[in-house]
Amino acid sequence: MPQRYSEDEIIARVFAPIAGAAALGLKDDAALLAPEGAQLVVTTDMLVAGVHFFPDDDPSLIAKKALRVNLSDLAAKGAEPIGVLLALALPADWTNVWLEAFAAGFGEDGRAYNAPLIGGDTAATPGPLTISITALGRTQRFVPRTGARPGDAIFVSGPIGDAALGLALRRDAALAARLSPEARDYLIGRYLLPQPRLDLARWLSANASAAMDISDGLAGDLAKLCGASGVSAAIELAAAPLSAAAREAIAIDPALFETAITGGDDYEILIAAGGEAALPEPACRIGRIEAGNAPPRFLDVHKKPVFFKKLSFQHF
Amino acid sequence: MPQRYSEDEIIARVFAPIAGAAALGLKDDAALLAPEGAQLVVTTDMLVAGVHFFPDDDPSLIAKKALRVNLSDLAAKGAEPIGVLLALALPADWTNVWLEAFAAGFGEDGRAYNAPLIGGDTAATPGPLTISITALGRTQRFVPRTGARPGDAIFVSGPIGDAALGLALRRDAALAARLSPEARDYLIGRYLLPQPRLDLARWLSANASAAMDISDGLAGDLAKLCGASGVSAAIELAAAPLSAAAREAIAIDPALFETAITGGDDYEILIAAGGEAALPEPACRIGRIEAGNAPPRFLDVHKKPVFFKKLSFQHF
Repeated sequence: MPQRYSEDEIIARVFAPIAGAAALGLKDDAALLAPEGAQLVVTTDMLVAGVHFFPDDDPSLIAKKALRVNLSDLAAKGAEPIGVLLALALPADWTNVWLEAFAAGFGEDGRAYNAPLIGGDTAATPGPLTISITALGRTQRFVPRTGARPGDAIFVSGPIGDAALGLALRRDAALAARLSPEARDYLIGRYLLPQPRLDLARWLSANASAAMDISDGLAGDLAKLCGASGVSAAIELAAAPLSAAAREAIAIDPALFETAITGGDDYEILIAAGGEAALPEPACRIGRIEAGNAPPRFLDVHKKPVFFKKLSFQHF
Repeated sequence: MPQRYSEDEIIARVFAPIAGAAALGLKDDAALLAPEGAQLVVTTDMLVAGVHFFPDDDPSLIAKKALRVNLSDLAAKGAEPIGVLLALALPADWTNVWLEAFAAGFGEDGRAYNAPLIGGDTAATPGPLTISITALGRTQRFVPRTGARPGDAIFVSGPIGDAALGLALRRDAALAARLSPEARDYLIGRYLLPQPRLDLARWLSANASAAMDISDGLAGDLAKLCGASGVSAAIELAAAPLSAAAREAIAIDPALFETAITGGDDYEILIAAGGEAALPEPACRIGRIEAGNAPPRFLDVHKKPVFFKKLSFQHF
């Protein structure tokens, strides 16, 4: 068995070096914050090995994905990160090498996104690696799920379906072999490493009437946003932005279009905004909010409704 | 297989009814807070079935324990709760009945301690039930681990060792059979259901130079507090408060005294405070902070040092 840190050593040697000021050196049981004149936004997401990622994925990428899905929630609420707490249940076979690579990735992204580690907890588990992150952010105005109004334009912040297709390729080697290496690498990369759209946080805070990050698929998450806002929507599927790699995959197997629209793990932002709101590329206008309580309609190029087998990913 | 809620139903039917205002009805991806003129304290603790509690324990007690160990951290920092986030990885055999009992306990304690649910996440796990809670609190002055000064008196907020003895009784039926039913029930109850000392938060904020909650045993946690403060300490073991039930157990097997002092799960507060600070019963003065970097000394009635095999519980 490899040499392994004790619980105290994990904190002092692995995590304290990547911790931010509010963490008080990770020598305490809690972090201390004093946000000045801003709204405070708090969100949490839990990731389980074998469910949200492959257990033998690069630990630095696992750490970054776990962090980024939380930062994505902050971005969608119009908030900029203050810091994050990391609770980690380590499986029986963890090693120092694994843990240090995990912490290196976590620290790297923490610096890149101004989201320092400010607290956490470690525990042993007889089950799979389990990562629970809580992210805190500040905003001048929280962008709710509930604020979409009839007439609002609906945007997505970037290409849809890449991550769901990347996952499909990882699960189906025969399918993966039919794509160009560039398309394959791009799609798998988008699954492994989402890009939280923190660059849009200020724009959203100033302009969006409602927003959420797309974690469970565009179709299902739009239904959630409409449900929370008490509105309906019409989406022109032809307007949904697809990457060149996604188009290549869909050309090989047209059924993958539904995977792209309903699959999840996009971590782009779904946005409702009124008036003349215009978002920079690669954001894309895909439809509009309508009055009523009907489920959102997805329309093909002939304005005919398209029905999906399953709107989104569900754990249960 | 019993009927089970979908992921959305879990949120809407089980957790939304126990959520606080900052949760925005759990219809959003994040909670919104605006603490007024106070320091904000954030802490997280993760509990794993089979590690921190028995998987077949009453779900309402599991929920309360998971919540209370986090509230205990707030109390030790001199903070009063604002709200909590709950991330829950549910094992393959979860049922609606189990989940509703869990939420009922969580909601009951949330009301009792003014610690409403303000957000969370649910996931499926092939492993054991895993609960990760993040608690937010406010204080006028954060009580650090690092502030103990030579000459400070050392207090504990109440009886030490009850929970560790309760756990020992659950693991050793022969031992448990030798105790009176009252002592057995009391000690096991203290293991199942810690009492976060939020009643002391204001006193600590105003008076303590350093504090932490005792989760891994008095001896080891004192060593941590001294290490963080750069001081040493002397403890009179005869002054350590023991409940009548703990004394009964130790009379049966004197080796259990070491279990009581080093065992953990107390969730009483270890406090260093200067001057004429006096705490109400059942708090108890047990020693004082000394200068230097030596490990804390534990002294018997003859002022002779006592050495323990293992200072505290460690996961790894």
